[in-house]
Amino acid sequence: MRTPFRVRVPASSANLGSGFDTVGLGLALYNDYEVIDLLPQGEFSIDVVGEGSGELHDPEANLVVKSYLRACAEWGMPPQGLHLRSVNAIPLCRGLGSSAGAVVGGVLIANVLRKRPLAREELLPLMTSIEGHPDNVVPCCLGGMVVSCWDGKDLRHVRLQALPREIVTVVAVPEVRVSTSKAREALPEKVSLQDAVFNVGRVALFAASWATGRWEELPWAMDDRLHQQFRAKLFPGGETILEKVRLHRECLGVAISGSGPSVLAFVKGNPEAVASTMCRIFSDHGVRSRFFVLDVDDEGATVTALASEEA
Amino acid sequence: MRTPFRVRVPASSANLGSGFDTVGLGLALYNDYEVIDLLPQGEFSIDVVGEGSGELHDPEANLVVKSYLRACAEWGMPPQGLHLRSVNAIPLCRGLGSSAGAVVGGVLIANVLRKRPLAREELLPLMTSIEGHPDNVVPCCLGGMVVSCWDGKDLRHVRLQALPREIVTVVAVPEVRVSTSKAREALPEKVSLQDAVFNVGRVALFAASWATGRWEELPWAMDDRLHQQFRAKLFPGGETILEKVRLHRECLGVAISGSGPSVLAFVKGNPEAVASTMCRIFSDHGVRSRFFVLDVDDEGATVTALASEEA
Repeated sequence: MRTPFRVRVPASSANLGSGFDTVGLGLALYNDYEVIDLLPQGEFSIDVVGEGSGELHDPEANLVVKSYLRACAEWGMPPQGLHLRSVNAIPLCRGLGSSAGAVVGGVLIANVLRKRPLAREELLPLMTSIEGHPDNVVPCCLGGMVVSCWDGKDLRHVRLQALPREIVTVVAVPEVRVSTSKAREALPEKVSLQDAVFNVGRVALFAASWATGRWEELPWAMDDRLHQQFRAKLFPGGETILEKVRLHRECLGVAISGSGPSVLAFVKGNPEAVASTMCRIFSDHGVRSRFFVLDVDDEGATVTALASEEA
Repeated sequence: MRTPFRVRVPASSANLGSGFDTVGLGLALYNDYEVIDLLPQGEFSIDVVGEGSGELHDPEANLVVKSYLRACAEWGMPPQGLHLRSVNAIPLCRGLGSSAGAVVGGVLIANVLRKRPLAREELLPLMTSIEGHPDNVVPCCLGGMVVSCWDGKDLRHVRLQALPREIVTVVAVPEVRVSTSKAREALPEKVSLQDAVFNVGRVALFAASWATGRWEELPWAMDDRLHQQFRAKLFPGGETILEKVRLHRECLGVAISGSGPSVLAFVKGNPEAVASTMCRIFSDHGVRSRFFVLDVDDEGATVTALASEEA
């Protein structure tokens, strides 16, 4: 494929309660990485529109560029410079997989420039090793609901069916950030066997119900005792949202998205009612927030040639 | 239904590695509980043929009778005495769900004698509360592969598809017993978050692969860090079997059945080769064993009227 071309990556929500570090869902909210032109090796020009427009211009800090360079190095490819335009809709550092999107985008850009591009599935181990965990990059790359396991070397994943049309995903995004490393530090090193077994049961129920369409099991299946009680303390309103939103009759389950601070709920019925409860609780805790009512993305990352004038 | 009637219950294998306390599978190996006649209240006459024939005659210790009486009490039914004949093929105290079979059998006998018998699904919470955990009674009662969660009051379960014909289940049963309470005591109270997260990933992969027929993922999906390393020490050869049998090219996964000491493997190809490896390892450790090559039971517990002469 010749420039200009566009790599589009979906947002993703990992964990979903019980599925800590293993479950992830692609969401129909996208970043577009447009490769306008190739530049001489080492030269990068980055335009950013939308989310992160004030902070992603530095190629040494830009994760799309870093992942692109990492893939080039991995494959022994001379790393051509890029004129890159990012049009970002995925909020940064909010638990919606913006970093996974950048990793998937960067690797896919390098893949387009390979002599023999690899299939998306073959790129997953590299993407996972750059990101460090599989639960966002796999659904970002492939779309849909995916269960993934990574042992530091090999990756296994199983993709489950789409959500039915009548269930939508509501995501409330507060105007605060939680760094992934802080969210990791908040977790204890040891847990009770009882809590571990609790999550084992709930996540097995989650995968089994999602795979068989038993959506009425989600409220039980998303319940968690391994991470959310620690992470909900890291942002204002977190604990209250987890406690209250599940009581909505139309709510099929609520969870911290990734390591937070966004919160995700599956809703059958009126998504605005659930969304406004979430945003009101954030507001009661002095935090502004916005919400998205999103379909699941079932296609994953895509690559499209652009007409020169379009780019 | 009038006497005589027969309640038939399948064996079951719980845990299957990663699915500690939540995953269970019905196996085509049965105990038959024949109610030959009703006797006056408080009178029980028990004949036992096959497994446990030397030790299950005392009605105060017989779990079929105890579960029958518990169900009668629960429903406010006068507990008629029973002339009961057990024809048992499920080995006792070997991790193959013989106690779950007795609980399911006893409750189903009481249910037959109810004025308005309940559907099997409605009996599950009572069965689970008698047994204390759901992972054997639910597959025993319903058949097949089931994921179950129990919070001490409510029960949730999702049944997954059958195994394809070309995959069989091999169970090796050594001539030693492990008491369930000893197997519980062998477990630590605390585990590392890392090990908990390991099992969360593997069991999610297990339920997702089983539900979607991705059988090639089972060797990964059955891997466990929460209980098997402690319980494999409780019977001779346990650790060696878990380590060696998985290397068989035809083995799709091996696990301690329930809390042991039986060991179960899924095999595609020649089951005898895997079975004889298991039995040889038991033998090398000075323990006699036998093996079963079993289909999955997909029907669960059944109740059949018997012609008077048949009983």
